[in-house]
Amino acid sequence: MTQSLGIALMGTGRMAYVYGPKINAHPGLRLEVIYNPRMSSAERATTEYGGCPMDNLDAVLAHPAVDAVVIATPTDTHVDYIERAALAGKAIYCEKPLDKSLDRVHRALAVLDTHKVPFMLGFNRRFDPDNALLQAAVRAGEVGALNMVMSWSREPAPPPLDYVLTSGGYFVDATIHDIDLACWIAGERPVEVFAAGTCKFDPAIGAAGDFDLTMTTLKMPSGALVHINNSRACPYGFDQRLEVFGEKGMLQTRNHRDDTLVRWTCGATEARKPLKHFFLERYDQSFYNALDEFHAAVTQDRTPSCTAEDGRAALAIAQACARSAHEAIAIRPAYDAGAA
Amino acid sequence: MTQSLGIALMGTGRMAYVYGPKINAHPGLRLEVIYNPRMSSAERATTEYGGCPMDNLDAVLAHPAVDAVVIATPTDTHVDYIERAALAGKAIYCEKPLDKSLDRVHRALAVLDTHKVPFMLGFNRRFDPDNALLQAAVRAGEVGALNMVMSWSREPAPPPLDYVLTSGGYFVDATIHDIDLACWIAGERPVEVFAAGTCKFDPAIGAAGDFDLTMTTLKMPSGALVHINNSRACPYGFDQRLEVFGEKGMLQTRNHRDDTLVRWTCGATEARKPLKHFFLERYDQSFYNALDEFHAAVTQDRTPSCTAEDGRAALAIAQACARSAHEAIAIRPAYDAGAA
Amino acid sequence: MTQSLGIALMGTGRMAYVYGPKINAHPGLRLEVIYNPRMSSAERATTEYGGCPMDNLDAVLAHPAVDAVVIATPTDTHVDYIERAALAGKAIYCEKPLDKSLDRVHRALAVLDTHKVPFMLGFNRRFDPDNALLQAAVRAGEVGALNMVMSWSREPAPPPLDYVLTSGGYFVDATIHDIDLACWIAGERPVEVFAAGTCKFDPAIGAAGDFDLTMTTLKMPSGALVHINNSRACPYGFDQRLEVFGEKGMLQTRNHRDDTLVRWTCGATEARKPLKHFFLERYDQSFYNALDEFHAAVTQDRTPSCTAEDGRAALAIAQACARSAHEAIAIRPAYDAGAA
Amino acid sequence: MTQSLGIALMGTGRMAYVYGPKINAHPGLRLEVIYNPRMSSAERATTEYGGCPMDNLDAVLAHPAVDAVVIATPTDTHVDYIERAALAGKAIYCEKPLDKSLDRVHRALAVLDTHKVPFMLGFNRRFDPDNALLQAAVRAGEVGALNMVMSWSREPAPPPLDYVLTSGGYFVDATIHDIDLACWIAGERPVEVFAAGTCKFDPAIGAAGDFDLTMTTLKMPSGALVHINNSRACPYGFDQRLEVFGEKGMLQTRNHRDDTLVRWTCGATEARKPLKHFFLERYDQSFYNALDEFHAAVTQDRTPSCTAEDGRAALAIAQACARSAHEAIAIRPAYDAGAA
Repeated sequence: MTQSLGIALMGTGRMAYVYGPKINAHPGLRLEVIYNPRMSSAERATTEYGGCPMDNLDAVLAHPAVDAVVIATPTDTHVDYIERAALAGKAIYCEKPLDKSLDRVHRALAVLDTHKVPFMLGFNRRFDPDNALLQAAVRAGEVGALNMVMSWSREPAPPPLDYVLTSGGYFVDATIHDIDLACWIAGERPVEVFAAGTCKFDPAIGAAGDFDLTMTTLKMPSGALVHINNSRACPYGFDQRLEVFGEKGMLQTRNHRDDTLVRWTCGATEARKPLKHFFLERYDQSFYNALDEFHAAVTQDRTPSCTAEDGRAALAIAQACARSAHEAIAIRPAYDAGAA
Repeated sequence: MTQSLGIALMGTGRMAYVYGPKINAHPGLRLEVIYNPRMSSAERATTEYGGCPMDNLDAVLAHPAVDAVVIATPTDTHVDYIERAALAGKAIYCEKPLDKSLDRVHRALAVLDTHKVPFMLGFNRRFDPDNALLQAAVRAGEVGALNMVMSWSREPAPPPLDYVLTSGGYFVDATIHDIDLACWIAGERPVEVFAAGTCKFDPAIGAAGDFDLTMTTLKMPSGALVHINNSRACPYGFDQRLEVFGEKGMLQTRNHRDDTLVRWTCGATEARKPLKHFFLERYDQSFYNALDEFHAAVTQDRTPSCTAEDGRAALAIAQACARSAHEAIAIRPAYDAGAA
Repeated sequence: MTQSLGIALMGTGRMAYVYGPKINAHPGLRLEVIYNPRMSSAERATTEYGGCPMDNLDAVLAHPAVDAVVIATPTDTHVDYIERAALAGKAIYCEKPLDKSLDRVHRALAVLDTHKVPFMLGFNRRFDPDNALLQAAVRAGEVGALNMVMSWSREPAPPPLDYVLTSGGYFVDATIHDIDLACWIAGERPVEVFAAGTCKFDPAIGAAGDFDLTMTTLKMPSGALVHINNSRACPYGFDQRLEVFGEKGMLQTRNHRDDTLVRWTCGATEARKPLKHFFLERYDQSFYNALDEFHAAVTQDRTPSCTAEDGRAALAIAQACARSAHEAIAIRPAYDAGAA
Repeated sequence: MTQSLGIALMGTGRMAYVYGPKINAHPGLRLEVIYNPRMSSAERATTEYGGCPMDNLDAVLAHPAVDAVVIATPTDTHVDYIERAALAGKAIYCEKPLDKSLDRVHRALAVLDTHKVPFMLGFNRRFDPDNALLQAAVRAGEVGALNMVMSWSREPAPPPLDYVLTSGGYFVDATIHDIDLACWIAGERPVEVFAAGTCKFDPAIGAAGDFDLTMTTLKMPSGALVHINNSRACPYGFDQRLEVFGEKGMLQTRNHRDDTLVRWTCGATEARKPLKHFFLERYDQSFYNALDEFHAAVTQDRTPSCTAEDGRAALAIAQACARSAHEAIAIRPAYDAGAA
């Protein structure tokens, strides 16, 4: 019989809308509480995916039916909720990133080190079925020792400027996904990174000191090299690909399509329809699978596969990339607390 | 607000297991009753998708919460349930085929003609998203006047002999799907059919007078030609494709894949994993979409898009194909009652 | 060292323009003579691929440097030239078909039976590298026993009506290629054929009793089935594909492209350029390869791989298809002399 | 009428074997002389593609039938022959690179500046039909302003160590091709480069201070970014791809295949055969097309499309890449004479 976990979903914003229905759909999870410290009456009334609306954090953490929290609040509140939930002995699933500040991330890890509750970081792309297959194939030795990992993430259109300004910068906001995938696939973390960034789409992003078009190189201890390219705009949709090149062969994942229909006309052959639109559609299944891993790890009393340390490392790498892009030198990531 | 229909699901076998969860998942359908005249105590107890278990047909049809029946019983009982449900004034969704006998099909159509309840035949492949896109593109004139329609249906492995012996023969059991798709895409029905069948996989099928490998040609009134090929075995999985060739271009649907992973090695390039396995996986969405069309048509008081007449025509064509394969002559399908 | 054959190229029309440069390009062939009984002064002067222009057949066949004839004249003259060249003891390469009349074909075979000169029929598509690879893979058992062979030949646009009227009909003119490929791949010849034809593109073709859109089914002794589809028009170019489905797998050849360029835009993904245009481009290499096989067989004193008997069988099958399409019954091809 | 150029082919090694037959095949070129200062008697006798063998440079350059030289000698002799041929007033086609030393390249450019003979550098990949199509599409604005250019060059196996040691290093030997392609496609040259290199395949290459696996980033004046990846080994063959990502779409070229055959089995679907093997096969046509451009430019009295300045820039960029890979900082290429 599936062991059931009572969940408090922290947050009522976009990511909470992603997790809410998936908690309901999962046979081992029960949505007990939806928390927002400043819950509107609308949120209280219309929460279509259920859960008792609460605005008192103490009460949420004292709630007897709540076994675990799923943190889907704004990034700069993650560490606070992690600390409070750890002290309350709750299992914790936290949407990525841990925080935009390495200092605060070190603080969160220290708390988790003292209060040993199950903790999982939601790098959801690891749980995408295609990415998971590719990583498993690599880890099973299908292509032998790795030479190169390449990751493409091009978004359909730039986010609102407000979002960009508080995102921690393009590397910390977005490249961090590709960084985590590359390290997870390669099974190692870079000794050195080099990144180049320019601003091609929204001058306001450049004026704010950020980039909207970047290329990143990671140099791995084994001698493998990683390439990442990111773009805040992409005319043909949400372009998400991986390529792994090893001594015995190459593996690729390709963009997902809504259908298999191809058209042959006098103007073209194999003209397919454009790609699915954005990450909520493309990675829908991955969020569910991430929750499933969280459930399985907690109920089986093992460490979830995506750890807080993974989050710390990815942030350190992303920050090194940003420094590299600004200073035009290769940077060694500051993996250790205090080293930054 | 979505208008809700109370459903009696007729049958507790394989197809009932397909429809039960989808009725539950549909916001406009309520599973009120599950019916089987000889329901086992296990079926009574363990029906995981709900509905009140009943074994008395009169009681089912008199049940005040039952607005519609979904008939998922053995084929030779379809017509009886259609007649009973029509007399009781219930809306009817019936799994294909109507029956294996044209006489009984004519009888069912006569009843439906007298008792004008909403009726929908479950040719589910029309509701597959890819097939639906292709048909819509054709009907919208994307490839102009049709020259050819081609349909592939190759099954992973032959069914049990028992199934074959009571299936009505390969043309009536399986080709009927391709026939219905082709007529629906072309918007017309054949004036003449020619079919060839052989027995390659299971001699017992041949000994029973049936085929397990067939090719069928339909000659349409417009001059368009249809090719269908069917196989009871296929080493690389469940092969389901369509190709439409018209004056302005060609449209194709391709096999679905579980993932996008491709492998490049010293032995091959672009070696993908084999196909998904069988129709329950491949056409899962289509069954839900078919129920959705049924719900929409009934609640909007319009005729469902897949009619009993479509079922009669497809059976007449399939039977003509079987005769053609046995007699080595082209056959004109017997569309009219009594013409067979 | 390559043994050299002196060639008399019979004909100065379209097919002669195909063979002329290839004879020159082949290190083992020498173009000695170009023959046309009614050679124009222009033909005499401008033959850019060389060879001594001659209009006297006796002189050509008596020419001491001529070892072999390549017959590229109008179809209804093939048999006459075969007879004359066989009597003169020349090796013979003859463009397909042997003739449109089975009686004349039987006559040619009788002559070749008496005068045992090397003879090769130019079913050039067998020598296309892709088709040859597929056939070799089948013969090597790569897909096990065959279930189905499918062949597509759709031409960009209907030929001039004059051509159609003297072509022997669509089955004899064009389907005969697919028939030969299918028999060659399957390693067997049909016991029964069924064909359906309509006229969709040029009413004058229909008025002349011919078809411009056909589908053909061949029933093989092993129980394998063959499907062929032909169209005199195709908006996206010259569509040439093969599919072989066997107990262990499927093999496909695909259309050739001029380049690998793909385009991803907001309207489509993977929009490639249309296909190459027609058979002279698509099968250019095959003509050279066919001559190479002829040269190798003659110089090695073995029978060329494409025989006169193959030509007789293909014609018998094509004529059976035409009868079937007109009479709407399956037809047993008349393989034996006098059986038609 | 095609104007004919008499050619002296300088060199009798591997690249001379590439150019010789193509000079013969070109209707506007005549192979008059083959030159090697230390010609063996074997070379003198067996040169199967013709031309008068000569070992005296003065005599070659004084030869009245020689209009142009095609320099296919070892790289470190290119500049000397350029200077001598320029002084002699001959048109010059020079295999890439100009030289491994920027100083010597500057010297060559100075001579060409004084002695204005037609000069073309053989960056043959520009003349590959697929690459040329892609570049033309970009220059025609098909994808709008460029965001990214990506170039893959992975070789089947490392070259002999001797070759590596005298090659000028991996960036100057191989990456220079990708650099030239990227600049030519983008229509601009980098303001800054960053490269990372490791040694994965042959420790002797690393011991010699060179790399066999590299990733390179070029930052263009427009803000576009370029990624290049190179590998001295590749298990699935010679991997050559381009991807261009612009504001209106993406263009890709793909690897060439020998055939279109695909295999579907119980283990995989679409398992194609491995790629063609190496650059002589893959880029065969491009060498011919490069000679054709040379012929056209010289006979039409215009500057060939691939200039000595292009060669100087590519070398400056490649050397900057090598420095960057060794020093872990971004480098500004030394485009101007004396700046290095």
